[in-house]
Amino acid sequence: MRIVVVGGVAGGMSAAARARRLDETAEIIVLERGRHVSFANCGLPYYVGGEIEDSGKLLVQTPASLRAALNLDVRTGHDVTAVDTARRTVTAQTPDGPVELAYDALVLSPGAKAIRPDIPGLDSPRVSTLRTVDDAIRLKSDVDEGASRAVVLGAGFIGLEAAEALAMRGLDVTVVELAPHVLPPLEPELAHLVTQELRAIGVTVRDAVAATSIEDGPDEATVVLGDGSRIAADLVVLSVGVRPDTAPFEAAGIECERGAIVVDEHGRTSADGVWAVGDAVVATDAVTGMRRPVPLAGPANRAGRLVADDIVRPGSARPIPNPVGTAIVRVGSLTAAMTGANRAALDAAGLDYRTVHLHPNQHAGYFPGATQVRLVLHMRSDDGLLLGAQAVGLDGVDKRIDVLATAIRAGMAAPDLIDLDLAYSPPYGQAKDGVNLAGMLAANVLDETLTLWYADDLEDVSAEALILDARSEGEYATGHLPGSLNIAHTQLRERLDEVREAAAGRPVRVLCASGVRSAIAHRILTQSGFDSASLSGGMLTLRATLGDRADTVLTTR
Amino acid sequence: MRIVVVGGVAGGMSAAARARRLDETAEIIVLERGRHVSFANCGLPYYVGGEIEDSGKLLVQTPASLRAALNLDVRTGHDVTAVDTARRTVTAQTPDGPVELAYDALVLSPGAKAIRPDIPGLDSPRVSTLRTVDDAIRLKSDVDEGASRAVVLGAGFIGLEAAEALAMRGLDVTVVELAPHVLPPLEPELAHLVTQELRAIGVTVRDAVAATSIEDGPDEATVVLGDGSRIAADLVVLSVGVRPDTAPFEAAGIECERGAIVVDEHGRTSADGVWAVGDAVVATDAVTGMRRPVPLAGPANRAGRLVADDIVRPGSARPIPNPVGTAIVRVGSLTAAMTGANRAALDAAGLDYRTVHLHPNQHAGYFPGATQVRLVLHMRSDDGLLLGAQAVGLDGVDKRIDVLATAIRAGMAAPDLIDLDLAYSPPYGQAKDGVNLAGMLAANVLDETLTLWYADDLEDVSAEALILDARSEGEYATGHLPGSLNIAHTQLRERLDEVREAAAGRPVRVLCASGVRSAIAHRILTQSGFDSASLSGGMLTLRATLGDRADTVLTTR
Repeated sequence: MRIVVVGGVAGGMSAAARARRLDETAEIIVLERGRHVSFANCGLPYYVGGEIEDSGKLLVQTPASLRAALNLDVRTGHDVTAVDTARRTVTAQTPDGPVELAYDALVLSPGAKAIRPDIPGLDSPRVSTLRTVDDAIRLKSDVDEGASRAVVLGAGFIGLEAAEALAMRGLDVTVVELAPHVLPPLEPELAHLVTQELRAIGVTVRDAVAATSIEDGPDEATVVLGDGSRIAADLVVLSVGVRPDTAPFEAAGIECERGAIVVDEHGRTSADGVWAVGDAVVATDAVTGMRRPVPLAGPANRAGRLVADDIVRPGSARPIPNPVGTAIVRVGSLTAAMTGANRAALDAAGLDYRTVHLHPNQHAGYFPGATQVRLVLHMRSDDGLLLGAQAVGLDGVDKRIDVLATAIRAGMAAPDLIDLDLAYSPPYGQAKDGVNLAGMLAANVLDETLTLWYADDLEDVSAEALILDARSEGEYATGHLPGSLNIAHTQLRERLDEVREAAAGRPVRVLCASGVRSAIAHRILTQSGFDSASLSGGMLTLRATLGDRADTVLTTR
Repeated sequence: MRIVVVGGVAGGMSAAARARRLDETAEIIVLERGRHVSFANCGLPYYVGGEIEDSGKLLVQTPASLRAALNLDVRTGHDVTAVDTARRTVTAQTPDGPVELAYDALVLSPGAKAIRPDIPGLDSPRVSTLRTVDDAIRLKSDVDEGASRAVVLGAGFIGLEAAEALAMRGLDVTVVELAPHVLPPLEPELAHLVTQELRAIGVTVRDAVAATSIEDGPDEATVVLGDGSRIAADLVVLSVGVRPDTAPFEAAGIECERGAIVVDEHGRTSADGVWAVGDAVVATDAVTGMRRPVPLAGPANRAGRLVADDIVRPGSARPIPNPVGTAIVRVGSLTAAMTGANRAALDAAGLDYRTVHLHPNQHAGYFPGATQVRLVLHMRSDDGLLLGAQAVGLDGVDKRIDVLATAIRAGMAAPDLIDLDLAYSPPYGQAKDGVNLAGMLAANVLDETLTLWYADDLEDVSAEALILDARSEGEYATGHLPGSLNIAHTQLRERLDEVREAAAGRPVRVLCASGVRSAIAHRILTQSGFDSASLSGGMLTLRATLGDRADTVLTTR
């Protein structure tokens, strides 16, 4: 049997390696358009930034090492341009001319290519992407040779990694993002923390604005934005997203959906003997059921392995799981991570959901270095099924998101998080870990022990309710909502008459710093007959939701 | 309604706080024998070691703060000595004499007390436990005043934390453990890594030996061991385990099992109106079904909360989950953690299980600081149900164990771990995370793509099989099994005849450094007709299993 794999990174290489492990006798040929296979795509920004010093480390395998260990026939410089699914052949362009190869099984792992928006001047030689080892080497050498100003177009994961890397190298960096905030998949109240960290490491953030043209000059390029502002740059990194790179396969009659290859649960395409994996295929979101390509390395690698199972051992392969969409990025000292669906995805899918915010310490508060994980959790309204979670913080973010990703994959409801036995000793967690606390909070919301109000509703709430600030006088003095009544939660039981008088029949909306004390206050109020609710995530979330407006909205008087 | 809670730490205090949140009108009285409530038991070693500088930080709450926030009536110095379940009263000894209190609902959270083995001299004033704030303050002051030699009796979690703390303060520390190795719940091949780290931070490890007496002298105590050796010490920390502290409750006729209070899934005891939580109750192990007390802070805290639910809102409380038994300890730079059952527990329960070893990097190998997580996984033989996992390493151990604890709680089988979408970018993980790899390895074992042999079987294997070392010549030269044949996995396909000749009809047992290359070699061999198996965890696990014998068993010739 001859297995031909198109694309020698992530999914394709996983398929080839697994096929060999299962079958010593198969002929396995990997065709890769570029110069390198099995390279560390995700490591490229860290090479530019100098953390990975040796570009050789980016080459995890070489054709020679793959030949030696796995008897794979890896051919670089082979750009597959046509497939004949009837004759079972592929045609590749090579430096020595076209080559036609027959296959018994064909695995397509062509990946995605950078979206090139319609911006005049984008073909300037100062504009590059960061998708190949050669891209990374060229960018690094530009920096080594004195580039001092950079513009990054697009503030998604790779854009932010590129911006961080260039800032670490001392460049003046501006990120330009069309969406209302950086890292668009992150909820705005968390994204603002990322914006603040970007500023802290010296990156200028220009969000909610388009780049309209790039003017190439002799000494610099000028990026012109929709608001007329002009940013001079020695180099421009284009990182506004990717789309499946599937033209020859669609042309071959393999079924595609908006350019992405359609596959079944075993990665089989519409053509007999042809499988596809990775960034080029349509996936069904595990939470929302929405169909879209999910360009993530983890799912691609694992799907590649399962496709090999289906080819070599037909009928016995596990199905490829629908992606939960877990992702993470480091920005300066901060980690931002997410799993499952965000509000936008839930709204688009028409799901009815509830959201909770909390800020647990990553480890015991009395142990040195305690710091908050800013956590947002979405659950289905009727039964609490976990739908998504996001977190930002200095430490412990990846652990909580991985636990929550596991819980989502397992189909847990949010209250099930209460029951997780997570590893606790003071350097690692809390006796009630943040994930447990998220479950407790969610359970309280579901059974109406707790009623929440949200920072997004501030305008309506300010107009219609008494806002009760349950923090201490000292905290209140550092910044509070105008017109709010300050009664510390420890005094509330004795001062309910004051609340009744100030409320004058209106609902009471409580807040504190993080939502813990206001929940206690809410319980006191609701059991005393008030229409009460507690601010989800407290002043911390309110400030992050207001973003740069916080200092105008809040007062210290 | 009057709720009386016996024991003002962890489970008891969680019950009291939750009861107040649910019910403003209840009278809630907490009786605590000691001087402090809601203190940070788990933080005590870190105060002794100097990482927590202020003893005030150990007092998370005080009776005054609990009164103010939650209107709790907290009474310290109240030692409950009797319960009358018919009259619904408790009697407490106080500095001012006995007090009798009536209750509507009683929550018992008396905790456990240190086991005091029958060792002559154990009542020496130089011997102390490390269970209360006062214990910690006294130990720290002994160290401040110049104690320079310490013996820790018992190398369980708290014993190791105490040993680490005293070593950090510069003392000469010896830990004495009756069991064959330190941290007895940890598998021996991982425990040896902990032993090595203890030695690296200057702690002398004496395992598999009993302390037989303590001789108290004017300037020092001498700890005498079963082998006749004598260790001089300025202070001795007793930490050989705990047992439920339940005498008055058993005397009151509340059903107990080997001294631990028997409760149902809502924490109800055999007496009407009496609940119990924490270290003093019998729990049913979630994995093995074995019944035993589980003295862990996390489950105690969460059970306290659920007991309050059952008291205040009878009929609607979630059941208290059976503990998975997740635990973690820091020893020097190392983290050791475990979840679910270990071999001893699985053997005791008569479960048929398979074990896999692996050593994945905690993050991308090409990213600076990559280091191995030494991972052991147990699964049910027939269906792969996850039964337990343990890990030791410098970084990323807590995350993997928490993910695995979540998977065990969810009832996942080991191959389900393949499908987890864990957060990946180079600083945080790998495209195939160690947990995914564990699932792949387990799946290969379950479907017999891979056959393993184990370091524990070395003697038999050496006698009956050809051992094939698939590492490079250079690695082989650093230490190998005598009589093993060295053919690097990259040369194996060309040199199968040599293997056939050397095996002379015997089975072939392959090994490499970690088990990855030997698995490839195994696949080549088994498809070429050999009876082959790959060493689980490779030379890394073999060395750790041999422990101090490794250098005698392995040869460089």
